[in-house]
Amino acid sequence: MLTQQRNWKPIVNAFEAVLGKNGVVQRREELITYECDGLTGYRQRPAIVVLPRTTEQVAAAVKICNQFSLPFIARGSGTGLSGGALPLEDSVLIVTSLMRQILSIDLDNQRAVVQPGVINSWVTQAVSGAGFYYAPDPSSQIICSIGGNIAENSGGVHCLKYGVTTNHVLGLKLVLPDGEIVDVGGQIPEMPGYDLTGIFVGSEGTLGIATEITLKILKTAESICVLLADFTSVEAAGATVSDIISAGIIPGGMEMMDNFSINAVEDVVATNCYPRDATAILLIEIDGLEVEVAGNKQRVIDICKRNGARNVTSASDPETRLKLWKGRKAAFAAAGHLSPDYYVQDGVIPRTQLPYVLQEIEALSQKFGYRVANVFHAGDGNLHPLILYDNAISGALEKVEELGGEILKLCVRVGGSISGEHGIGADKKCYMPDMFSQADLETMQWVRQVFNPRGLANPEKIFPTPRTCGEAANIANIKQFDGVERF
Amino acid sequence: MLTQQRNWKPIVNAFEAVLGKNGVVQRREELITYECDGLTGYRQRPAIVVLPRTTEQVAAAVKICNQFSLPFIARGSGTGLSGGALPLEDSVLIVTSLMRQILSIDLDNQRAVVQPGVINSWVTQAVSGAGFYYAPDPSSQIICSIGGNIAENSGGVHCLKYGVTTNHVLGLKLVLPDGEIVDVGGQIPEMPGYDLTGIFVGSEGTLGIATEITLKILKTAESICVLLADFTSVEAAGATVSDIISAGIIPGGMEMMDNFSINAVEDVVATNCYPRDATAILLIEIDGLEVEVAGNKQRVIDICKRNGARNVTSASDPETRLKLWKGRKAAFAAAGHLSPDYYVQDGVIPRTQLPYVLQEIEALSQKFGYRVANVFHAGDGNLHPLILYDNAISGALEKVEELGGEILKLCVRVGGSISGEHGIGADKKCYMPDMFSQADLETMQWVRQVFNPRGLANPEKIFPTPRTCGEAANIANIKQFDGVERF
Repeated sequence: MLTQQRNWKPIVNAFEAVLGKNGVVQRREELITYECDGLTGYRQRPAIVVLPRTTEQVAAAVKICNQFSLPFIARGSGTGLSGGALPLEDSVLIVTSLMRQILSIDLDNQRAVVQPGVINSWVTQAVSGAGFYYAPDPSSQIICSIGGNIAENSGGVHCLKYGVTTNHVLGLKLVLPDGEIVDVGGQIPEMPGYDLTGIFVGSEGTLGIATEITLKILKTAESICVLLADFTSVEAAGATVSDIISAGIIPGGMEMMDNFSINAVEDVVATNCYPRDATAILLIEIDGLEVEVAGNKQRVIDICKRNGARNVTSASDPETRLKLWKGRKAAFAAAGHLSPDYYVQDGVIPRTQLPYVLQEIEALSQKFGYRVANVFHAGDGNLHPLILYDNAISGALEKVEELGGEILKLCVRVGGSISGEHGIGADKKCYMPDMFSQADLETMQWVRQVFNPRGLANPEKIFPTPRTCGEAANIANIKQFDGVERF
Repeated sequence: MLTQQRNWKPIVNAFEAVLGKNGVVQRREELITYECDGLTGYRQRPAIVVLPRTTEQVAAAVKICNQFSLPFIARGSGTGLSGGALPLEDSVLIVTSLMRQILSIDLDNQRAVVQPGVINSWVTQAVSGAGFYYAPDPSSQIICSIGGNIAENSGGVHCLKYGVTTNHVLGLKLVLPDGEIVDVGGQIPEMPGYDLTGIFVGSEGTLGIATEITLKILKTAESICVLLADFTSVEAAGATVSDIISAGIIPGGMEMMDNFSINAVEDVVATNCYPRDATAILLIEIDGLEVEVAGNKQRVIDICKRNGARNVTSASDPETRLKLWKGRKAAFAAAGHLSPDYYVQDGVIPRTQLPYVLQEIEALSQKFGYRVANVFHAGDGNLHPLILYDNAISGALEKVEELGGEILKLCVRVGGSISGEHGIGADKKCYMPDMFSQADLETMQWVRQVFNPRGLANPEKIFPTPRTCGEAANIANIKQFDGVERF
């Protein structure tokens, strides 16, 4: 939304000269769409939205932002959950939704080159006929963009076995924060020099904008089997997760849902597969060669039974597999039906700490008086506690954020992390000092400042700033880390 | 070796105050050991060698180097093949060979924390009793250090399936080039913020020194089988490699040796397993669950036969497996027996280009008049042409380096890379402009300069400098990229 303090006319003219009138959005009502991403608690309308179609147009747009000293924020589909694409006042949002071409596919060398606006699931659709797929599968995969996945280093159910996004990116064409175009990485996994691809993936738009992305594609497994194991205690389900991994079996995915989530899902989507009286269920997907899946299936069933599973059901045909997964995939939406609002947290813990941490979350839930549903990637210890609340009640959001923060601190205390796959964005930057020392944060800031010396690329993200962190005691220490403040 | 231009006394005193007299080496004859690493063609004696035992001692040594503006180079076991640990005149070598403690092992969470001087194979030895191992396995694994592996992002036979070193490092305690101690990464695979662990691994000592390294350890496979397939054409062997991967089978390792290497190995170590009349052999290791290995073994045999393999032998017991591997592991040493000197090249190509590239290498070999043996990681397209020559013949090394350079340029031309696992070091920095644009190299230099602004940490490595690159036409362009020159 254009503010009075600036003369916007020459800026709009400059963007229109490069992108055409259709490539620049500035009407107040059209900008509403862009005022938040999936983290809906924070909102800010941008001044202008631009819609480039090519690398050169992105570079030109970034150069205009530099010329007029305007902060710019890249945005894909806007499904991010940490506010990574949250605009600032007087900022330019560079939206990649017209950059949706799959540029090339090389099946022999198992790679595809795509533009950043390409939707995650399109990559798999484009290669599945030939027996390949793209592994990272966030829950939002039918709508989220590859560019956004790169920015947040997105995960998904299948990242237990196959790794998060960074493990599937070979190379990037980048527009740096000054508008220069560079290539990092390449067509093969190992490149000499510094791993700039690695540092860019997960940098949440603070180091530039990826405009061409070379992805690894994998061969589709010959056989897939999904197991649903039903437990009467969280400890038993947690021990099962550890035992499966310790046995040398790495399932394609291994998800846990607690009783609360199970009932929420059955109330809303009625899979009729999930036992409503189970304390916890595990959904375990085993993939590989037919002979391997058959062997592992039996071993997993044995481990579940040994840990006291009441029942283990399995599905190998696509239809029944889909049915077993349906509840898990709908779990966030189901929480939305149970409660006017919910807040999804994202933290990681060492697998061995699962039972302890779930107990502690339950205690925090009781203490704060908010219900917490647990649905998560158990195999890699990536928790997604869903805190249910009603935003119409004054002060509720603040309490819920405090509870969310306590959960994150708990994750850090047991040797884990404040984000598994959603990123830090605007939402969690206050917690960075809980996880990293002053020297560690400063080292990251060095990197940001070298790529982004003017601080125009996605400012006020990732790193703590006094403006949003209430902890006065830390302000003096934090202030010096923030490039935006200094430049 | 101390030179006259400086007053070395206060420097030596400062080091001795921190490290004790035994921690500082300065006698000319003792320094000879340190004048080169595995790239023996380049030699330079350092001024001083220091031997710290702790992170704090490394930090203190680095601070002394800063105080006296002395370049410093970290060195592990000195087995590197690209001259990454090559000293400069008036430089300090920080040698980690007294930092050989395995600090902790956490089997439940599959990780181990080690000091940088720990020998690669010791990690596996420490955990193999419990059924675990550390995956990256350079040929030099019984002598090379984990710190050196980190610096060069080392590979090995088993990196086809399990990835190179960077895929096995969770976190690092680092001494930065100014002596500050920071922690990057952590105890779990995915951490928020920039992936500083990723950028440090493979940075060849130019961004600091790792003093504590958290490694992933993997569960030992239940079953392992090694196949030796014998081909009458390189094309058939190359097509077999592609077909195996395309079938969705990822062997633990897949190595190719040409006729010349086969005979060299049989002459020297007499495995009596390798068919001397084969044009090429493939060694294929299949690992996993017993049932999986049995299934994949038959499929691989079928693919070999379909591509015209004359014979496929297999070994599942440890003794026979070792015998089949023996020749491959001894291949470099065997080349040393065939010829007074040899030069190992290290380049990567897309797998599909294997037959073409091997033909071109043969043509280059004929053109330059030097024999080239090919022994390499076929599965990931990582070539190791061994050029045989006699250094006593004046001008031979220069010709061989030229031939090696032509091979690298060939790799780049087909979409590959100038290094797969040995790093750039001093040896290959001239070829960086063949692979990277000016803007790409400059972006890497930004990163170096932010971590290493004074250019004291391992100068004259990775990035091209006019001093060693003869191509006058490029000098003007190259000069501005080099941080050392500018600071």
